[in-house]
Amino acid sequence: MAAIITLTTDFGLADGYVAAMKGVIMGINPEATLVDISHDIAPQNIPQAAFVLGTACPSFPEKTVHLVVVDPGVGTERQALVLRTPSADFVAPDNGVLSYVIEPFSDGPLSGDSVDLTEMAAGLEAVAIAVPRFWRTPVSATFHGRDIFAPVAGWLSRGLSLDSFGPALTRVTVLPLPRPRRAADGSLVGQVRHVDRFGNLITSITTADLPPAGMPLAVEVAGRRITGLSRSYAGGGGLLAVIGSSGYLEVAFLEGSAADRLKAGVGDEVRLHNGQP
Amino acid sequence: MAAIITLTTDFGLADGYVAAMKGVIMGINPEATLVDISHDIAPQNIPQAAFVLGTACPSFPEKTVHLVVVDPGVGTERQALVLRTPSADFVAPDNGVLSYVIEPFSDGPLSGDSVDLTEMAAGLEAVAIAVPRFWRTPVSATFHGRDIFAPVAGWLSRGLSLDSFGPALTRVTVLPLPRPRRAADGSLVGQVRHVDRFGNLITSITTADLPPAGMPLAVEVAGRRITGLSRSYAGGGGLLAVIGSSGYLEVAFLEGSAADRLKAGVGDEVRLHNGQP
Amino acid sequence: MAAIITLTTDFGLADGYVAAMKGVIMGINPEATLVDISHDIAPQNIPQAAFVLGTACPSFPEKTVHLVVVDPGVGTERQALVLRTPSADFVAPDNGVLSYVIEPFSDGPLSGDSVDLTEMAAGLEAVAIAVPRFWRTPVSATFHGRDIFAPVAGWLSRGLSLDSFGPALTRVTVLPLPRPRRAADGSLVGQVRHVDRFGNLITSITTADLPPAGMPLAVEVAGRRITGLSRSYAGGGGLLAVIGSSGYLEVAFLEGSAADRLKAGVGDEVRLHNGQP
Repeated sequence: MAAIITLTTDFGLADGYVAAMKGVIMGINPEATLVDISHDIAPQNIPQAAFVLGTACPSFPEKTVHLVVVDPGVGTERQALVLRTPSADFVAPDNGVLSYVIEPFSDGPLSGDSVDLTEMAAGLEAVAIAVPRFWRTPVSATFHGRDIFAPVAGWLSRGLSLDSFGPALTRVTVLPLPRPRRAADGSLVGQVRHVDRFGNLITSITTADLPPAGMPLAVEVAGRRITGLSRSYAGGGGLLAVIGSSGYLEVAFLEGSAADRLKAGVGDEVRLHNGQP
Repeated sequence: MAAIITLTTDFGLADGYVAAMKGVIMGINPEATLVDISHDIAPQNIPQAAFVLGTACPSFPEKTVHLVVVDPGVGTERQALVLRTPSADFVAPDNGVLSYVIEPFSDGPLSGDSVDLTEMAAGLEAVAIAVPRFWRTPVSATFHGRDIFAPVAGWLSRGLSLDSFGPALTRVTVLPLPRPRRAADGSLVGQVRHVDRFGNLITSITTADLPPAGMPLAVEVAGRRITGLSRSYAGGGGLLAVIGSSGYLEVAFLEGSAADRLKAGVGDEVRLHNGQP
Repeated sequence: MAAIITLTTDFGLADGYVAAMKGVIMGINPEATLVDISHDIAPQNIPQAAFVLGTACPSFPEKTVHLVVVDPGVGTERQALVLRTPSADFVAPDNGVLSYVIEPFSDGPLSGDSVDLTEMAAGLEAVAIAVPRFWRTPVSATFHGRDIFAPVAGWLSRGLSLDSFGPALTRVTVLPLPRPRRAADGSLVGQVRHVDRFGNLITSITTADLPPAGMPLAVEVAGRRITGLSRSYAGGGGLLAVIGSSGYLEVAFLEGSAADRLKAGVGDEVRLHNGQP
């Protein structure tokens, strides 16, 4: 049955782990099209995987199955789940890796505690992965990616109903994704959420936080102040602030990596001064 | 004709070498599905390629064609071959890269000499790649991957019989894959066979070598002793021993790479003390 | 509609950028087969991307669509284009990244200025990408790969005519690709065009520049002289000169990287002494 299945892992591509998962899926659904999102997630880095998945998945067609295996708790009692949103399905450990998928459905910021799907905007359902009949046997305690997640994604892509895989889940684990807060001086304080391969600092400040077009603004990060927004990475030189492709404010350095240049990284504070040159 | 072809090389993905092979295959069998096993094999590292292929290929559906091009002897008289097992076909240089594929069919350990397929468990056949009519012309002396192996894999995936490609081969080159030996003190002495991307030390000791469940055991490597088996990578901390996803005993370090921590690598001795705490 | 689309970018695979492009393409043409050429092009390295694309694309079947996004000028007024050759289509920024694709159609060497397609060998057409109706909206100023190039490649692979995307272009930007020149002492002076993952120095000197087979020759690079041509990378030891898989003279070092060994890189001079031992 034609279907798209994406894969996001921290397995790297030097070993055969990712290929083993693909082999299992193809044995179940030979007509599935497999697309790698990333296998270069740093080992066990759930926030990085969550961000990368969150920015890539909106570009995929409806009903895509997104398989995510960044799973430091493999072999423990951590839950595994299938999450269905109006646009896609997600097969993943319940460890926060779906936070950016869930965030748009939440009224408030994600606190880092689990969220209750029934209290969120309509349209999210989840089940616990609990029915061994769809798994590969015996299940290795160290590689649920191959033995549980991959086969579940394969069967899901063949159109099995969500409840085939286990009982409904109402609570799903999320990472803390604080929204920018207003400081006493009127500036907006956000943080770096992700550093990409070019060294761009991608922040929690979004288009919606910006002053009306044409109003002056300044961005402060790692002790440096950048005046005004650039339209793109090109033009000018040095450090610049720009709205990136997912709607987040980014800080870039034209001659190289902003992260290296500023010695800045995930979690660092970023301030937006609206109306100030 | 629908078919799965996997690719394992040491070409990396920065150059266009792997893509050139894929282009050739798609020109021959446009309906083939191509799956990368790994292209990050260290240059000319046959043992690494053999291990990675050996652990990934059992997850693929029957009749998959596995194409392997780690080929330090390209352009010399080294033989190229197609090996057929009951579950899959392999297209590769005859340099030992199929050792882990062949090992389960052998009664004894692989000595490093070539093996005689007719003396092994039924079901293995091989042919030399010798019929130029299926090759891309002219054949580059430096890139048989593109000009010989890829087209042979493409035609094989279209269902051509094995003997189309050349005469039967009875002997196939293998790496030495010694089995663990019993030492005078009763311990079992194996070795590290592979270090994966997480720095896990994967050894030649397997599930079959372990004492009955519940019996005490200890693992000794690089002067360190680990007591007992963990069920998974999670829980506890520090160094641990675990049965990995391919049934091999592994040594892992929870806070990072066991290989770095222990300064240990492929070929290093690992001892299993059964019945000892 | 069945079609092959290749992708070449400098995005790396740690972030979700490449996957986002693939998702967009699959939403437009679910039957397209996507093949990665390389995403490990060094950031904004147009000459590297041009070389890698140029050596990989001849192996693909006719009518393949090659999508290239190495685009330091994204968000500026740089043109984007579709180039059609007799064998394939190319979707790319107009920044020289198609130079090796265009070179075989040119009578003389590429000067680095733009070339006029109407003055070249028959069979090249190009259009500017100018019709927003095929783009993803809104277009991010930082990610034309996802919002312009990917959808254009997707629609092109479904058979839309070239002029659907914009008006004809007669001039296309190219890199300077000087041909080897004859020095006063009779030697031929070329340069290193690319360093591959093995550290091989791939030069601008080609098979056509060599003396008749059997005649002596010597290659000089970085102060070292190599006598004679080897048939392949194997055999002998140390530095050697060989004709590589795309017909270029290469300098290799058997025990490792010639680039490291000679401290040589792209642009360095290479001399071929014909008729000299």
